[in-house]
Amino acid sequence: MPAYATNMRFKFPIVALALEIVTIILFALFAVYDDGKGHGHGAHSNETHHEANPMDLYPMFQDVHVMIFIGFGFLMTFLKRYGFSSVGINLLLAAFGLQWGLLMQGIWHLDDGKIKINIFKIINADFSTATVLISFGAVLGKTSPVQLLIMTILEITIFSINEHLVANVLKANDVGASMIIHAYGAYFGLAVARVLYRPGLRNGHENDGSVYHSDMFAMIGTVFLWMFWPSFNSAIADPGYTQLTAVINTYLSLAACVMSAYAISSLVEHKGKLDMVHIQNATLAGGVAVGTCADMNIEPFGAMLIGLVAGIISTLGFKYLTPILSSNLGIQDTCGVHNLHGMPGILGGLAGIVAVALGKKAGGSAAMQAAALASSLGFALVGGFLTGFIMKLPIWGQPPDQNCFDDSIYWEVPEEEDENEESLAHADHSKNKAEA
Amino acid sequence: MPAYATNMRFKFPIVALALEIVTIILFALFAVYDDGKGHGHGAHSNETHHEANPMDLYPMFQDVHVMIFIGFGFLMTFLKRYGFSSVGINLLLAAFGLQWGLLMQGIWHLDDGKIKINIFKIINADFSTATVLISFGAVLGKTSPVQLLIMTILEITIFSINEHLVANVLKANDVGASMIIHAYGAYFGLAVARVLYRPGLRNGHENDGSVYHSDMFAMIGTVFLWMFWPSFNSAIADPGYTQLTAVINTYLSLAACVMSAYAISSLVEHKGKLDMVHIQNATLAGGVAVGTCADMNIEPFGAMLIGLVAGIISTLGFKYLTPILSSNLGIQDTCGVHNLHGMPGILGGLAGIVAVALGKKAGGSAAMQAAALASSLGFALVGGFLTGFIMKLPIWGQPPDQNCFDDSIYWEVPEEEDENEESLAHADHSKNKAEA
Amino acid sequence: MPAYATNMRFKFPIVALALEIVTIILFALFAVYDDGKGHGHGAHSNETHHEANPMDLYPMFQDVHVMIFIGFGFLMTFLKRYGFSSVGINLLLAAFGLQWGLLMQGIWHLDDGKIKINIFKIINADFSTATVLISFGAVLGKTSPVQLLIMTILEITIFSINEHLVANVLKANDVGASMIIHAYGAYFGLAVARVLYRPGLRNGHENDGSVYHSDMFAMIGTVFLWMFWPSFNSAIADPGYTQLTAVINTYLSLAACVMSAYAISSLVEHKGKLDMVHIQNATLAGGVAVGTCADMNIEPFGAMLIGLVAGIISTLGFKYLTPILSSNLGIQDTCGVHNLHGMPGILGGLAGIVAVALGKKAGGSAAMQAAALASSLGFALVGGFLTGFIMKLPIWGQPPDQNCFDDSIYWEVPEEEDENEESLAHADHSKNKAEA
Repeated sequence: MPAYATNMRFKFPIVALALEIVTIILFALFAVYDDGKGHGHGAHSNETHHEANPMDLYPMFQDVHVMIFIGFGFLMTFLKRYGFSSVGINLLLAAFGLQWGLLMQGIWHLDDGKIKINIFKIINADFSTATVLISFGAVLGKTSPVQLLIMTILEITIFSINEHLVANVLKANDVGASMIIHAYGAYFGLAVARVLYRPGLRNGHENDGSVYHSDMFAMIGTVFLWMFWPSFNSAIADPGYTQLTAVINTYLSLAACVMSAYAISSLVEHKGKLDMVHIQNATLAGGVAVGTCADMNIEPFGAMLIGLVAGIISTLGFKYLTPILSSNLGIQDTCGVHNLHGMPGILGGLAGIVAVALGKKAGGSAAMQAAALASSLGFALVGGFLTGFIMKLPIWGQPPDQNCFDDSIYWEVPEEEDENEESLAHADHSKNKAEA
Repeated sequence: MPAYATNMRFKFPIVALALEIVTIILFALFAVYDDGKGHGHGAHSNETHHEANPMDLYPMFQDVHVMIFIGFGFLMTFLKRYGFSSVGINLLLAAFGLQWGLLMQGIWHLDDGKIKINIFKIINADFSTATVLISFGAVLGKTSPVQLLIMTILEITIFSINEHLVANVLKANDVGASMIIHAYGAYFGLAVARVLYRPGLRNGHENDGSVYHSDMFAMIGTVFLWMFWPSFNSAIADPGYTQLTAVINTYLSLAACVMSAYAISSLVEHKGKLDMVHIQNATLAGGVAVGTCADMNIEPFGAMLIGLVAGIISTLGFKYLTPILSSNLGIQDTCGVHNLHGMPGILGGLAGIVAVALGKKAGGSAAMQAAALASSLGFALVGGFLTGFIMKLPIWGQPPDQNCFDDSIYWEVPEEEDENEESLAHADHSKNKAEA
Repeated sequence: MPAYATNMRFKFPIVALALEIVTIILFALFAVYDDGKGHGHGAHSNETHHEANPMDLYPMFQDVHVMIFIGFGFLMTFLKRYGFSSVGINLLLAAFGLQWGLLMQGIWHLDDGKIKINIFKIINADFSTATVLISFGAVLGKTSPVQLLIMTILEITIFSINEHLVANVLKANDVGASMIIHAYGAYFGLAVARVLYRPGLRNGHENDGSVYHSDMFAMIGTVFLWMFWPSFNSAIADPGYTQLTAVINTYLSLAACVMSAYAISSLVEHKGKLDMVHIQNATLAGGVAVGTCADMNIEPFGAMLIGLVAGIISTLGFKYLTPILSSNLGIQDTCGVHNLHGMPGILGGLAGIVAVALGKKAGGSAAMQAAALASSLGFALVGGFLTGFIMKLPIWGQPPDQNCFDDSIYWEVPEEEDENEESLAHADHSKNKAEA
């Protein structure tokens, strides 16, 4: 089957090394350490606040770092035979993405023709990779490492354009990035998934599910994301009481979201049992949805209401909407990113429009907030479709249907089932004997 | 069996959503962001030190947050079929508990009739949930989510009264909360466990034990608790050198405690082998026991002696006392919280009395320390018994004996054993053939 | 077999308790809290920078703490039946080692005859344990807890001498400790492994390998090490922009290293598949190799080149060099520490010589850098051989070949295989019936 040349032996090393070497050359040309002597960082208003001590934001950076590498990586390990890829390819994409993001975001903020790297910039570089990791969730199990590296380059490049437009042209507020990361990443990924639609998986795949231990590994990702989300939403907020507001709103939104996600999960499931898919994902929707207005004066109870609604919408999405997207629209969304990042991201954007209209943020414009949401969705859908068509070219080693959701096509996998197979062998042996 | 209506379909969603809506209304009435303009936070002397920068304590908060959600959650995943509940219900209880704790602790420190939320307050809210998570350990595997939500409300409410009494009326020292969190949480949970005694589990339960991988997951909890305990004991200490003292004392007490816990585990076990139950738990007793006097001038070697003794007591408790409590007193303590939190908590309280009597803390009174210990134990036992009787009402969906320690009664659990069952089926099949 | 008296019942508790009691006595004699009033901390130039606030370095300390206890501990859980020992003995050795390290490092920096403990000192104490944990990787699965405690004492003692020589006599730069921790720890461990060579394991051991879930646990260690390595390399750097430089260099070196490690892994493996051993280890080589010059002005692209090369060397080492070391030199390096710490550590030392020669660090001397590297390797090899011979004495309970790589010789291990064994039993049963 020539369309499925999944052997990565030369394809992947050449692409990976070529990308890295080009990246290093670009860094040699453009990247320098921030020495604190910059002047005119461009229009990014948030960028001025850490001149006091260049390490002030470092603990926040490390929290975000943990979300990117442990949070996203382990959240996707829920699949029974896809843990190596989930955490391993997550590491690969984020490690390349943060370098690419530094360049792509940096070219909008050149200082004497150079990108001056500081903690603020590496937080934003980590953020840019989050869009890719969200999209990765939509196509998890159905793509090759080379396809995903291509997605990383294109998605971060387009993200940087939209981010510049939203932050510097529209001057919209999106401190926790409900729109420019979560909604953008989700709809980009869904557009890619639409293009890569596999009719052969219409009736599911035996490996597209969890086992007990894989669900436990996924909870490591969930809980680290949940705990550090206040850092995600406040890392680039104005320092002091504004940053405190972003922390408190996120902390409370997430807490309320847990309650509604658990309640609705129990309500819609057989015999009122909780479903791990909901618990792993919908409990986080409150962090997504409160993102845009995290640093606004929405009052603690306002944040909790946003979290409550997000938990409900997200859980119902997993239960009722994901199957419809798959069967009716040809969108096979492996991790349900539409429910965790897509709808809650839009909810966050809408909440931001309302909050700005109500004057909860000094100097905001509801129209610009709406434009920012529309821009993020537009770039996501157009960019995702284009990227999807490039990824669909039959030269990137995409796996055939029967090898989807299975690490062993791209990884050396240890023989774990030895003992079972042995017992099976014994059984078969006895069977033969019996038949003889 | 009508007493065991374990279907949560309406019970749980209604209770959870009702609690959350009431909580949001109370937040709307009382909770505001701290704007730094407060005056007279009440008698809590620790509360003044972070006016410099409202985010100073944020890294400490995140360490405590990790202990609450990863630490406690994964520590309890040691049971072979109860990992979803351990980490999942831990998340549920802590997410609700921190909201409730903010309210209950806040009403003792109103400022213009409002609860002003800041990092210090959310650290304390996280602390208040720790009492519930400790008690959860005593009844793990034998209670329904609804029962546990009820325990959360009552335990945190009573905790807040005792905390106010100890800190503001008695003016006792308990910076690391050996008394007001650890001893209180443990004896509260043991009292509940006594009321919920199950004669049917007298001879154990096949699921009341670990498997290899569940012990590994539990070590994630252990190690995160162990590492971040210095933050737990120092988070609300006076800033500067007092806080440094609390960090160093806890760091050293825990290190010494590891040595004694390992030594005693090997000494009392068959052929000198180490027992994972001891390693997962008793290594942490040093953090509990040094809590009350963590910020006192007890000298580094004093902290190490406390840790050494705590590790010995805790390990011996697991080996010899837990079986006696179960068989003679009707206290079935699933996680052995008496050994990790109960006895080391009392040891911490006693060490505090001695340290204050020896003048290791300026302005302390040994009598008030003793009163604080007595108060914490009294509130725990009385509160725990009352709470236990309410939890025992046959309407909360408590599981029958045979479904204890099993996630599948409240969770959708993936079919993990497929392959084994298949091999079993093969074997049975061959057996039938053979018999035929 | 009297040479293999692996029963630890008295041996281990006596050694552990005796060591702890001696340690506590030494702490009682020498250790006090730092009260900020010290004068003349000795020649250690880095030690002056946190007088502003004694807690400034605390978040960095906690990152390093996580690397030591979660990072190293879980990285070694890749073996299928050795997870308890990996994470459990890691905890034991590090908990004792940090106490011993505080003493051994402290005697070089006495202040009025006392060791004044502060955050800087406990970071260094954690660092000193890293050498032991690296060496532990080389002998993993083939040593008893008592042997390893002996290694801990000796290795940290010798480390402290070499560290003093390198930092205070030679005044060489090694901010991220490529030489004094990584190269030292690796070659010390390899020398020990050489002395403890087991001809009986020449053809491998059935338990010397991973299973699917053990590889997943190991990735927890890998990712936490990877994320927090910028803290490791910058924790004791001069504050401000120098520290920022160390963070950025490490962040970028690690990102580039991921790309080359993945590329080379795919290139050298069967059908271009990725190998978990490479991903778990070689992705970290960039952090090791950039250590010595992390705080030097090597430019971002310089850091990336170092990472790129480190990832290549490390992966090739795992693939081609480790088998040769084992078969030709009698060095059985369980975790491949030569590839993760040994060669990248030397690369780091060499890079440091070049960088200093090129004037990238004010006040450095290339000759002193070279002397520091030679000193570290010399102390490692001589110290490792001596320690190995002491560890080889037949009284410390070393396991026989057939019990290597198996937790159950020193741990109570739960019966995990019950169900499989049961199905096997059924099969056998039917077989018997059939035969009858």
